[in-house]
Amino acid sequence: MTEPSYSEFCELIRGVFEEVPFVREVGLKLSAVDFEQQTLSATFERKPTLIGNHYHNILHGGVIATALDQVGGFTAMVAAYQRMGGAIDWEEKLQRLMRLGTVDMRVDYLKPGRGEHFVCSGSILRVGNKLVVSRMELHNESEELIATGTATFLY
Amino acid sequence: MTEPSYSEFCELIRGVFEEVPFVREVGLKLSAVDFEQQTLSATFERKPTLIGNHYHNILHGGVIATALDQVGGFTAMVAAYQRMGGAIDWEEKLQRLMRLGTVDMRVDYLKPGRGEHFVCSGSILRVGNKLVVSRMELHNESEELIATGTATFLY
Amino acid sequence: MTEPSYSEFCELIRGVFEEVPFVREVGLKLSAVDFEQQTLSATFERKPTLIGNHYHNILHGGVIATALDQVGGFTAMVAAYQRMGGAIDWEEKLQRLMRLGTVDMRVDYLKPGRGEHFVCSGSILRVGNKLVVSRMELHNESEELIATGTATFLY
Amino acid sequence: MTEPSYSEFCELIRGVFEEVPFVREVGLKLSAVDFEQQTLSATFERKPTLIGNHYHNILHGGVIATALDQVGGFTAMVAAYQRMGGAIDWEEKLQRLMRLGTVDMRVDYLKPGRGEHFVCSGSILRVGNKLVVSRMELHNESEELIATGTATFLY
Repeated sequence: MTEPSYSEFCELIRGVFEEVPFVREVGLKLSAVDFEQQTLSATFERKPTLIGNHYHNILHGGVIATALDQVGGFTAMVAAYQRMGGAIDWEEKLQRLMRLGTVDMRVDYLKPGRGEHFVCSGSILRVGNKLVVSRMELHNESEELIATGTATFLY
Repeated sequence: MTEPSYSEFCELIRGVFEEVPFVREVGLKLSAVDFEQQTLSATFERKPTLIGNHYHNILHGGVIATALDQVGGFTAMVAAYQRMGGAIDWEEKLQRLMRLGTVDMRVDYLKPGRGEHFVCSGSILRVGNKLVVSRMELHNESEELIATGTATFLY
Repeated sequence: MTEPSYSEFCELIRGVFEEVPFVREVGLKLSAVDFEQQTLSATFERKPTLIGNHYHNILHGGVIATALDQVGGFTAMVAAYQRMGGAIDWEEKLQRLMRLGTVDMRVDYLKPGRGEHFVCSGSILRVGNKLVVSRMELHNESEELIATGTATFLY
Repeated sequence: MTEPSYSEFCELIRGVFEEVPFVREVGLKLSAVDFEQQTLSATFERKPTLIGNHYHNILHGGVIATALDQVGGFTAMVAAYQRMGGAIDWEEKLQRLMRLGTVDMRVDYLKPGRGEHFVCSGSILRVGNKLVVSRMELHNESEELIATGTATFLY
């Protein structure tokens, strides 16, 4: 197998992202990957199954955590892929990326999760040869910052 | 409305817990509430929609975060209810409990989320007149500790 | 006592900040307060007592946590002061500000704490009528981002 | 250099712990290491330089964070040392242990830091071949739980 181009790698990542069963449940879709900036974003729409509080009609904290974890992890994958560079062959890179896992995450719930359309974006705070630290944000369609998070990933 | 007895309050909490839409999606069920110890636990079964990684057949980190947030929050509700004591009437207590929300949460993912049957339990680290801090754990049927978390709730 | 002007309040905060005994030990000095942006920064110099690792000659993690906690807390004080607005008299405001305390904090140690001169800055993620969430960063004189943190404060 | 016995390793760790400059400033002393349980504890006494709030005469949050970070890190060292086992020679083990660093830490400040004598203890939540997760607690002489923390270390 030969190393994919950036645009092929982007397609690959999109496929992996959207075939994750729990991600499909939530309805999270990858919307943008920027290799140069090492940022990534995904969107989802409010639907009845995502609600955490009937009285206030807001997202469950677990939905927010799911979006942050997923987006943070895939942003970390992009950064880890670039960090591994040319010294490692593609097969081994792919294996390491598929093993990437969340070590820990903090989520700050800043505003109630109200809205119809949500955008979750990730960026990189640190990338080493074993660990990546990502920062994530969740906004609604009114540009309100609903939650932020920081997570550490091992690959 | 008169103040419910402990067992009535327990039934009330169970009803509220299990009617949360996203909790139903995950399949989380309240299994025990201990008023004296201020602990609470809930269980769920593995099912295909909860998977986060096809290759390793493990729970999505967001499922784990959902269970910890939900269990931590309801443990906090029990503690907040007791903390409010007799000085506040039941209507006002109920209103404050319904407004209880997660401020922030840390999750530590200690082992891959493998298993068929999961138990999530919560206990109290701090209860004040505005804030509660809960600690949560997730075990599988082999008693492996899969994740722990700490969360701060405002009521 | 009459309400101080912004510049008087700024002087007051500086006095309180720099008379904290452990802050004097570390040598942290308030360098800027921006009321409009709700940001605040402080600086300190490397000295032998702040070292955590002889072999690598880097700051102790506790020094970094001290700077982040202190700067986050005083940024929160500025935001809380503004949030309380005109409805509460100055005496009561002052009492609430003096009681402001850290509920929880996450620190991410991104790079070894190397350098001679450090700048710690804080900004606000959320300000409510009970809680403030601050974000903090620590840079060295080469503009390297050494650590970030997020903390929740109660007032 | 030959591998030290457990009691020699314990002495070695004690020496390294107490020669850390910032640890000396705080006055933290290693009091117990249990290799079997992978736990460790340290103590310190209140002194004027450790105070964070004159009005309430309590420890600065940074003092608490320093104790938790230091104790968590040395507990992690004990666990990492055992995890490396017989496959790696002593020189290399020592090098890896000396490089062990904090990746991230959460501290929960549960009660004001009042007291004369403080005990900080650490235990292990996870030990892998790269990462260790420690949990830490701080009690005063009245057995009050003042703070807890969780931290991730890389070695």
